[in-house]
Amino acid sequence: MKNTGPQFSFPNGAPIYQNGAKQNECTFIILGATGDLAKRKLLPAMYDLIAHDRLEKFVIIGAAIEHTTIEHILDGAREFVVGAIDEKVWQHIKERSYYQPVNFNEPKDFTRLYELVDSLEIKHTLKGNRLAYLATASSYFCNLTQQLVASKIIKKSIATDDLWHRIVYEKPFGYDAQSAHEINACIKSCIDESQAYRIDHYLTKELVSNIALIRFTNIIFEPLWNNRYIDNVQIILSETVGVENRGAYYDAYGALRDVVQNHMLEVMALIGMEAPEKLTGEFIRDARAKTLQRIQVIDAVMGQYEGYLNEKSVRPQSTTETFAALFLRINNPRWAGVPFYLKTGKALDKKETVIHIKFKQVDCLLTKNCPTDSNYLTIRLAPDESFILTLNAKKPGLSQEIVPVSMEYSHSCIVGQVNLSAYEILLEEIMRGEQSVSVRFDEIESAWRIIDTIKEEKIPVQLYAQGSKGPEVAEQFAKKHGMRWRS
Amino acid sequence: MKNTGPQFSFPNGAPIYQNGAKQNECTFIILGATGDLAKRKLLPAMYDLIAHDRLEKFVIIGAAIEHTTIEHILDGAREFVVGAIDEKVWQHIKERSYYQPVNFNEPKDFTRLYELVDSLEIKHTLKGNRLAYLATASSYFCNLTQQLVASKIIKKSIATDDLWHRIVYEKPFGYDAQSAHEINACIKSCIDESQAYRIDHYLTKELVSNIALIRFTNIIFEPLWNNRYIDNVQIILSETVGVENRGAYYDAYGALRDVVQNHMLEVMALIGMEAPEKLTGEFIRDARAKTLQRIQVIDAVMGQYEGYLNEKSVRPQSTTETFAALFLRINNPRWAGVPFYLKTGKALDKKETVIHIKFKQVDCLLTKNCPTDSNYLTIRLAPDESFILTLNAKKPGLSQEIVPVSMEYSHSCIVGQVNLSAYEILLEEIMRGEQSVSVRFDEIESAWRIIDTIKEEKIPVQLYAQGSKGPEVAEQFAKKHGMRWRS
Repeated sequence: MKNTGPQFSFPNGAPIYQNGAKQNECTFIILGATGDLAKRKLLPAMYDLIAHDRLEKFVIIGAAIEHTTIEHILDGAREFVVGAIDEKVWQHIKERSYYQPVNFNEPKDFTRLYELVDSLEIKHTLKGNRLAYLATASSYFCNLTQQLVASKIIKKSIATDDLWHRIVYEKPFGYDAQSAHEINACIKSCIDESQAYRIDHYLTKELVSNIALIRFTNIIFEPLWNNRYIDNVQIILSETVGVENRGAYYDAYGALRDVVQNHMLEVMALIGMEAPEKLTGEFIRDARAKTLQRIQVIDAVMGQYEGYLNEKSVRPQSTTETFAALFLRINNPRWAGVPFYLKTGKALDKKETVIHIKFKQVDCLLTKNCPTDSNYLTIRLAPDESFILTLNAKKPGLSQEIVPVSMEYSHSCIVGQVNLSAYEILLEEIMRGEQSVSVRFDEIESAWRIIDTIKEEKIPVQLYAQGSKGPEVAEQFAKKHGMRWRS
Repeated sequence: MKNTGPQFSFPNGAPIYQNGAKQNECTFIILGATGDLAKRKLLPAMYDLIAHDRLEKFVIIGAAIEHTTIEHILDGAREFVVGAIDEKVWQHIKERSYYQPVNFNEPKDFTRLYELVDSLEIKHTLKGNRLAYLATASSYFCNLTQQLVASKIIKKSIATDDLWHRIVYEKPFGYDAQSAHEINACIKSCIDESQAYRIDHYLTKELVSNIALIRFTNIIFEPLWNNRYIDNVQIILSETVGVENRGAYYDAYGALRDVVQNHMLEVMALIGMEAPEKLTGEFIRDARAKTLQRIQVIDAVMGQYEGYLNEKSVRPQSTTETFAALFLRINNPRWAGVPFYLKTGKALDKKETVIHIKFKQVDCLLTKNCPTDSNYLTIRLAPDESFILTLNAKKPGLSQEIVPVSMEYSHSCIVGQVNLSAYEILLEEIMRGEQSVSVRFDEIESAWRIIDTIKEEKIPVQLYAQGSKGPEVAEQFAKKHGMRWRS
């Protein structure tokens, strides 16, 4: 007998980037350029885009309150580029990157910024596609949008395929339903909806694709995807790090607002949504939005890691949650009676983003080994992307024993190790005008309503050790609801 | 990103043979001991049983028309033992093996055989569990059963757990429905049904388990297993060898009677059967029998490999088929409209026994890449046992391309390379009195009716080259029915 081992086949070599034309040019303006996001994500993503030859002409303009230099900012970003740096590309970026101090409340600073943008576009012969990335707290979104438009850096209705001005709003969009509403009204009065990108890097087309395509291109899942066959769904986003140097932001927001309102509820909407008419932006957003409207909160517990109060910029005696476990439902015929369990936390024992879909027990036809283990479909989003189907099989030999076996398909093994960061994909898709990466405001609003409902309960936080599985109360929660956390 | 590769996990080490008590003792009488089956399968299987310490006490008695010695027969069998031979075990077997020439039509020879059996059981202190294995053409079954009973080698109604006499009838059981009926009536008049094992080594509990357990312990297959989701089923049994030294037998029988009537139709019944109340012998046989009754022949083509007429003991101008492709249906609500395609042949380009279950197309929600590839469940029975699920996934990277990926679970990688031959399992199960390895006569009868129906058509054979994929007519058959052979 040949030891075939587990295998998968992938018929053809898989060159990436074969869809979508290469982007010609972009003036990339980062507001909040001295912050963590610019350093860790945006500048490394720009490097990747250019190194992968996906952006022909560009200029990068950083702006923030501080007096600093672009060299200093780029030096800080350098270590966050994954893999060996091509020094030629890095030099190329350096030669096209600029910084200007800007007081966000000072119109004159924006006028000067406009002059810089204008002169650099002439110098570098760019025709003026502009992407303003607001890498700031959402409390600045209204003001910054007004300033950008007033100074003509971003012009309303410059939104054709040939020439476009776009503004990107980082998540979380607002602090609650009320504030989100106000920010949105402000933005709407300044620019067209098609110019506004409320982004969530979990919602790149890549990820939407991975979940939606698994669901909708494999008929074997179609009859299974409902309350007749699904026992429960777990969506888990675990981090090993604490708040790092984002203490002030995090302490104001907490886990619910930082990742549940956006990442986790959007993933839940992707799992729960009805089949869209087509797997394209607006249809998917419609389907997600309808699902989010039907989400109901059943139970929630909160935690805070020990030592959180000693973190830099965290308020003394803060009761901000760094851990949350939720029991939600989607109130529609497809999902009636199916619990969706969400769990997230910082300073936990592992870093992982994963969806576990547990199928119901099979009718027991066996004389022994009953009940058998449930089937699971596990969709892993981080640190690697893969999906795993856990089935039952007979132990080989004369034994009649049934054992669970896992069949895994991992994306990362297919195309060598080409590592597209979420932000690289995101920037590329925004430049391409891919609206599906922008979360529609009705989705954001529904998600905030869910968070607001939980926040009203003023659930106390229970302490948990750093590097643990979370607070004891999460296990009590599991016991109470007759479930078991799968990771 | 970590290159996890494809993986499966198998929670515990898997010691084999944990169910069922070790068999204490058996007098193993092979009628037709000088034939191919004894040499290639039965004696190596006995070696394995003893080497694996599954049979404590035994004596082997060979009988056939020829004047030969047990040493000569064992020498011939030796090369068919898989793996290194433990000389101690081999010596042990030699010391307990005997041969006696027997003319199957001569009652005196059976009296002498009885005396040998009796004396050897005394010599080796065996209490007299007897297994008479008829490794002969089915035309001898009636006569041999009568002789065995008349000579008291096999006594009617010695069929308790403590002491048993059993007769094993190799497949094919009969030549058509009529002859099978006559043989069965003859046997029934001689021994109890519980003493008769009409065996098909494809129907060991091991294999029944592999198919039935995959189907019935994994809820994800439950809603899929019907005409709403299954497009067609292919059952393929390909051999690379020709008729070898079985020319006389094969030329009389042909592919339909040699493997379709038994192996392939029984596998089809396992795939097609309704869920039995329990996954145990009688319930499974009931379910299989009901399915076989509903099978209808829609189309068939036949082939014969070039050079077949030159094979030893093949009749000149023989029109015996060495290749067959069939289109069958199961006429019941579950399978209405689902084609079952069976294909088998000798001297083909590969050796393989495999079941391909092709699922229907998914509704197309994509703007490109439509239609996507179908999902497949592939159950491989030989040369290795595995199952493979072929799904669609997105090509990694920005591409929206959908590609089929295969997830495989292979039995052979789990427990090292412990290689239980079908016959080893079979003998062990017969000694244990496992009735489910015996095919019930109503199953055999239904299967013969299907073969008789095809035979009545007198379909001409089309020649095909040795080592090819079969005759051209098999491809025309595929085209005609709008299908494609998957292997």
